[in-house]
Formats: sequence, C-alpha cells, structure tokens
Amino acid sequence: MSYANPPRKIALVGIGKIARDQHVPALQASSEWELAATVSRSGSVEGVEAHDDFDAFLAARPDIDVISLCLPPQPRFDYARKALMARRHVMLEKPPGQTLAEVHALQRLAATQGVTLFASWHSRMAAGVAAAKSRLVERVVRGARITWKEDVRKWHPGQDWVFEPGGMGVMDPGINALSILTEILPEPVHLVAAELEFPENRHTPIAARLDFTGNVRAVFDWRQEGPQTWDIEIETSKGSLALRDGGARLEVDGVAEDLADHPGEYPSLYARMADLVARGQSDVDLAPMIHVADAMTLGRRVTTAPFEFDKEKT
Amino acid sequence: MSYANPPRKIALVGIGKIARDQHVPALQASSEWELAATVSRSGSVEGVEAHDDFDAFLAARPDIDVISLCLPPQPRFDYARKALMARRHVMLEKPPGQTLAEVHALQRLAATQGVTLFASWHSRMAAGVAAAKSRLVERVVRGARITWKEDVRKWHPGQDWVFEPGGMGVMDPGINALSILTEILPEPVHLVAAELEFPENRHTPIAARLDFTGNVRAVFDWRQEGPQTWDIEIETSKGSLALRDGGARLEVDGVAEDLADHPGEYPSLYARMADLVARGQSDVDLAPMIHVADAMTLGRRVTTAPFEFDKEKT
Repeated sequence: MSYANPPRKIALVGIGKIARDQHVPALQASSEWELAATVSRSGSVEGVEAHDDFDAFLAARPDIDVISLCLPPQPRFDYARKALMARRHVMLEKPPGQTLAEVHALQRLAATQGVTLFASWHSRMAAGVAAAKSRLVERVVRGARITWKEDVRKWHPGQDWVFEPGGMGVMDPGINALSILTEILPEPVHLVAAELEFPENRHTPIAARLDFTGNVRAVFDWRQEGPQTWDIEIETSKGSLALRDGGARLEVDGVAEDLADHPGEYPSLYARMADLVARGQSDVDLAPMIHVADAMTLGRRVTTAPFEFDKEKT
Repeated sequence: MSYANPPRKIALVGIGKIARDQHVPALQASSEWELAATVSRSGSVEGVEAHDDFDAFLAARPDIDVISLCLPPQPRFDYARKALMARRHVMLEKPPGQTLAEVHALQRLAATQGVTLFASWHSRMAAGVAAAKSRLVERVVRGARITWKEDVRKWHPGQDWVFEPGGMGVMDPGINALSILTEILPEPVHLVAAELEFPENRHTPIAARLDFTGNVRAVFDWRQEGPQTWDIEIETSKGSLALRDGGARLEVDGVAEDLADHPGEYPSLYARMADLVARGQSDVDLAPMIHVADAMTLGRRVTTAPFEFDKEKT
C-alpha cells in the first residue's frame, strides 16, 4: 500500500512573461507542488498570496522552503543569495547568473547551507532531447550545425535589458541551443573561433557565429523576420539526426519520431526540482554558460546597424 | 643518510622572450631539473638538443616525460593535447588557454592519462604573495584596489597577437593581478560590473575597469608611459596591506616586509611542478580566467582611439 505525498509548497519570485506563460501553469498542473505565494513588484497570480517585498516574504513564510526565481539575470543573484541564506531550496531560470563566478558563489553557499540549488535549462527538457541523447550514444558524431534564428521584437518586445551588459543579447536564446548540445553530445567540444555582431548602439550581440571543435558550428540571429528557426542537425557515422523547434521534434534519418506523451519543458523541470529536493542534491551544470563566456572572450567583434525595438525610430 | 634525486628531464616548447627571460634561467639554476631539449620553429638554447617539430620530438625522446609550454595561448591547446596524449606531464604558462572549455578538456585528458597538468600563474609566486595571504587570514578585508598600468609598447613590442581574438589584450597583464587576488583573499569575490575600452582598430581591450563584490576594484591600462604600476592595496579591519611591483614587495601598514630570501617566481613554479609530478597531482585553478571571461561577458564596451605599436603610423 502506498500513499501519495502531499504537495510541497513553493513560491515564485518575478511574475513576468515567463512566469505567466510557463511556471504558473506547470505548477498549477502538478500534484507535487502547491504554488503557495508569489513575490513581485508588479505581478500576481489570482488566488495566490502575493508579496511585493522579498525580505518580508522570507520572514513571514518560513513554511515555504522552496523558491523558484524567474527574474532577469541582473537582479537574480541577490535574491538567490538571500533565499539560500534563509535555508530555502532554490531553482534558477536560465541563465543561472550574469557571471560564472557568481554562480560558483551560489553553489558554495547552497553546499554550506545544506539546501538544493537547481540551475535549470528548460530546453534540455524539450520532447526530443532525451531521445536524441540516447541515439547518439551508439553513434560517432561527425559534426553538427545549430541554426537559431528568431525575431527579438516578437519574443522580447521592448525589453531593452536584453541589450544591456549582463543581458547577453542573442546569447540569451543561443544558450538554449548550447544547453541541448552540451546535454546530448557524447564528447564535450570547445570553442575555437567566434564572430559577434554588435549593433552600434548596443552592448550585447544581436548575431553570432560560433565554431567549435568536432566540426560543430552555430549561427544565432535575432533579426529573423517571418519563419523562425531553432534547429540542431547532426551528422553521425550511422546517418543524420535533427532536433527542430527548439528540441520539440526529433527526426532520425529524415523520419519524425513519435514524442506525443511528453509532459512539456517546465513540468519536467519542476518534476526534476522535486526529485532533487527529495534526494538532497543540487544540479548546477555551467557548460552552456562557459561556451557563451568563451565566445564573448574569444569572439571577433563586428559593429553592425543600430537596433531599436520600435522600427520607426531607426 | 639521504641521497639527492637525480635531476628530472624536461623539454621547453616555444623559445621566445618569456622562455629566454624566465624559464631557461630557472631550469638551468635548478638541481631538480635538466633542460634536456627545446622545441621551437625559430629559437634554441645553446648546448641543449633542439627540435623544430613537436611530433618528431615526442617520438624521438620518450625518456623526457615532462613538458613545459611557453607558447602564446592561441596555439597552446594543440601542443598540450598532443603532449598529454603521449602521456607526458604538462606545465602551462598563463593564461592556460584561449577558452575555459579547452582547459576543462585538458583537465579531463590529464586525469584519463594519469599525468600531471599544472596551469601555472607566475605572479602567485611573487615574493610578497604568500606573506600577504597569511596576513589576511587574521583580518577582515574591507576592500581592495588593483592598479595595473603598464606600457604595452615596452612589454609586448610589435606583438600584434595580443590584440587578436584570444590574445586577451590588457587582460593578459591584468590576469596576473587577478591571479594574486584570487590567491590571497580569504573569501572569493565576483564581478558586478566592468567597462572595457577597445581601440577602434583592435579586437581586444586596451584598458578595463572591473568592479567586484566586497568593495574590490581593478583598473588595468596598457597605455601607461613613464612609471609603471602593478599595485594591490587592501584595507582590512586591522590596517592596510599593499603588494607592489606585481607582488615583489609587501608593505604592512606602510612598512616594508623583509622578503630577501625569496627564490623568484619561475624557480618557485618549477619547484611546484617537481612536487606535483612527484605526488602524482594536478593543479588547475581557473578562478583568474573566470573573472576575465566574466568581464568580457558582462563588460560595457567603449570604443577608443586606434592603437598602433609604431606611433608614427597613428
């Protein structure tokens, strides 16, 4: 005879677009979690206790011992640090920080405090990723091509922070591709060259070409109008694999695999978080972020046309 | 009764300025090491077997099981990989690579091959560093100011590679300061903001300002004519410490410490390498390089005047 565990209380911090689109529905559909509170200066979720001050929330609700941070990377460290200092388990949206050193600091703090830190990479949970990974175990990878082209005006309308230092520019979507690549490749690769296009009025790149060892190449572009492309195509000793739509579809030698019963990226992330907390483990893999830092360090810089969200201004 | 060990054979790869100025004298003065061969397309050392092809050297001299690489960072990875594949112990000049991911790849390979990998940071061996570190253990650090200002025309005359992607620009000397900082501070810090000045005709910064947590600030500038400055000044709960001349001098509350019997940076590095090989250990600390990658990722970019080594061209 077995009993289901009662749902575990969790608080969401940062009620913006990604929280509303993904985190809230995933938590509300889960039997493992109870969305017990939100913390946000501007947003809230109907029927859920709403706080606008994080310190006050931590003091008022010691019973909520898991916190998921959906803030932009720039303010996230201070929230994560406070949550860990208050001995809460913490889940971070991607990327886990503005800098590698700050994530290492959070790792040390989580270990000292004896709590879970989960640096989540939602694209790794896309429907085709686990299947692609298991296919590649049996094959020798001859090369890969990543094509990640989307319209920043559509996905980040008016969000100037993506072009501020720490906002990562086109590396923000690109790191999703790198999170899949680093998950599925049997052998790690490293960057050997990169070219970064910086709009002359912006501090982060709007497009990038990355060349890795192992004949792995990536093209990221945030100026793509019309059809959007998030593809990873891999040539192997036994034919080709292609992950399309950001990993949602998998083709093996041109034939689509059946991935119909996949729970979705964010439900899978929260299932993973529940498992990590239950086991008393952390999961912080910085490989995708290291590739971005390497590209920003090694990349050849090209200045390109100014970018404004409102085209009439340009 | 004890017997001194016979000197261990070592090969130097890359006979340029740093090899002649530092590595060769350190090895020739050491009773632990025998400089048994050099590998270089252009340089050699009088009285030492000279090779110009690394593969041929590896095949011809299996008895030389330790290799020190003094090449610029761009070609260094391929040499390090070949040396580790041939089961040689490897010592790397700073910085240990062009990218973090390539150094992680070398770490994995060294572990697999069961050989030593030493990513050396020569400035950590400067006369005042160990003394400064031990002083800081007893004190609370209130803040630190790094001032690293030198003339690139003097220290890298005509070496355009320092301004090519991967050459790091002013981060090349600056990482020496960061290697000392990360060695002596009792608690790690992380970058919160940076400003990078790129000459409009160059791919790497010529000057940088880095702001870290803990009230730690660094200014790097490669345009310093006249007096050169390599200082780290630290305010603590019990007064001030200052490392000057790149760590060669230590002042405690304004009074110079006696550091007269220090063996020198490169002799200390080779003593450390001998110890690592004898113990079967590796030493790869990427903290200084992570701070540079973080600055290149997070830094606000400012375009500044073009730079030419020959001033008459400007």
